[in-house]
Amino acid sequence: MLKDSGTAIGEFGLIRWIGEQVGETRALVQGIGDDCAIQTPQGGKDLLISTDLLIEDVHFRRAWTSMFDLGRKSVAVNLSDIAAMGGTPQSLYLGLGRSAALGDDDIKDFFRGFLTEARNYDVVLAGGDTCASRGPLIIAVTAQGAILRGAAIRRKGATVGDLIYVSGTLGDSALALQLLQAGDRPATSLAARLHTPTARIGLGEMLSQQRLATAMLDVSDGLLADLQHLLDAAGVGADLELAALPLSDAFRDRLRVDPTVIDLALAGGEDYELLFTSSQKDLAERPDLLPGVVPIGRIVAQPGIRIRQRDGSAYQCLRRGFDHFVEG
Amino acid sequence: MLKDSGTAIGEFGLIRWIGEQVGETRALVQGIGDDCAIQTPQGGKDLLISTDLLIEDVHFRRAWTSMFDLGRKSVAVNLSDIAAMGGTPQSLYLGLGRSAALGDDDIKDFFRGFLTEARNYDVVLAGGDTCASRGPLIIAVTAQGAILRGAAIRRKGATVGDLIYVSGTLGDSALALQLLQAGDRPATSLAARLHTPTARIGLGEMLSQQRLATAMLDVSDGLLADLQHLLDAAGVGADLELAALPLSDAFRDRLRVDPTVIDLALAGGEDYELLFTSSQKDLAERPDLLPGVVPIGRIVAQPGIRIRQRDGSAYQCLRRGFDHFVEG
Repeated sequence: MLKDSGTAIGEFGLIRWIGEQVGETRALVQGIGDDCAIQTPQGGKDLLISTDLLIEDVHFRRAWTSMFDLGRKSVAVNLSDIAAMGGTPQSLYLGLGRSAALGDDDIKDFFRGFLTEARNYDVVLAGGDTCASRGPLIIAVTAQGAILRGAAIRRKGATVGDLIYVSGTLGDSALALQLLQAGDRPATSLAARLHTPTARIGLGEMLSQQRLATAMLDVSDGLLADLQHLLDAAGVGADLELAALPLSDAFRDRLRVDPTVIDLALAGGEDYELLFTSSQKDLAERPDLLPGVVPIGRIVAQPGIRIRQRDGSAYQCLRRGFDHFVEG
Repeated sequence: MLKDSGTAIGEFGLIRWIGEQVGETRALVQGIGDDCAIQTPQGGKDLLISTDLLIEDVHFRRAWTSMFDLGRKSVAVNLSDIAAMGGTPQSLYLGLGRSAALGDDDIKDFFRGFLTEARNYDVVLAGGDTCASRGPLIIAVTAQGAILRGAAIRRKGATVGDLIYVSGTLGDSALALQLLQAGDRPATSLAARLHTPTARIGLGEMLSQQRLATAMLDVSDGLLADLQHLLDAAGVGADLELAALPLSDAFRDRLRVDPTVIDLALAGGEDYELLFTSSQKDLAERPDLLPGVVPIGRIVAQPGIRIRQRDGSAYQCLRRGFDHFVEG
């Protein structure tokens, strides 16, 4: 379908160029070039759909990222929602509002990044809509995926006694953003977590296929905010161990000079890690099955989230949930 | 999923309110409230997906439409792409970037219109993403539909000798826009075509079920521009009869005082009527089957579009394709 609402000849040329870049789309009956994309659903599978809106100076700043990385991130952020159900992503749909400041080369860089990341996840750009924006650059992405019928891991489902697990490391992306906002230059590893996050597709698939998780979501608003969504869905509470939070070396380096950054691991946002509960107590001891997964606490009956420090005292996070740049 | 990237307490309240308005979603395994919507595809059906981006002051002006009607239009415009394949719409996904100028009541009016129109088409709002926009109001809609396997009517497929048909009337929406741009007040019937267009779902379904059309799309960029897409897809041309264009009474009233408005019927845009080709020569004579469909020309081998006037002379349309407000 990739349609166009502009009139410049360059736009139609751009759409042709995008079609050429996308290339073969054997997974689809019809990709870009008609009113809708058409595909034949796989038998025995459920359909997953999620949509995200990314707006310049709300969700990203052009001064801090390349258009190529922005294209990559637009894909990964959206696919993270498919990962959060345990699904396999299949097709992407892109609405792009071009700001006047962007030239064709900028837009091509964006698409190169978008399509590179789509290929990394074996997902096809199947349709979209481009137009001129008089204001900010606007990126609207919808992802479609599939999962074995009935195997999707919902937000609800946590049970008292379940362990709480998280993948990867927390707080890197928020720390990179905080450093950029302060005019500092984050370490490469931190900046990469902010600009080119990873959707944990393989881990999500493993958890759904093996039916290991009772509830799951991805950490986009910050650990505490997203954990609260999971707790609300089941009417339960959580006890967390502060010392158990998985932190990167670069994050720990910063933590040594500024102990307050621990709140970025708790409430920073944009981690795009998987947060899930399981009745299995030994998942972290099977790194072959679930690499990089650690237990950080336990589901309890008492509502709310309590964070315990190594000495047994309670820790109070002073930071609220992720707010992009709106008040940042 | 309906997620939220803002921090104001009002936003979370709004999302709860939206969930309440949406109500029961029995067609879905999971609607709003998780990372993805989940649904079980119907057996023997293909999946259709289309996405549209609507930006304030590019695609609409708030001074000219109510938020309720804008909500309705956001649905209809997107579902028109499903109609253009002959499909049945099932679920909608909404990305909403709230401009600072909009209060909660404005947003609620938008959702009331959106959900009213969704119910009119028996379609469910299954997910979305809301956030603050520092610039214009942004509306990104993705529609998902289904169609009998292999029955989707593509843009390609027109054959020399096919008749060209169109539904409804042409030019009303563009005429309403032209009058508004000139500071005039369009007749109610014209304004309704601009602000609350209709997606021709029933007609599209009939055409696909009866396999009556060889090619189809919806008229969004203007008859000539969209017909050219259909011709390009098949490598053919078209002869049109100017006198055959279906025009409303209100349009004909204006045409009598300003003959140039005929170009709005040819190249105005936003008609959201179905334009299709068929090897059947008598479709217009079966109004019980295909109400409001008229033949306007014929597919020929010679590339390009020729428009013939009643006296046999050629007509030249001076207007280019629909350009929203970008240059309007």
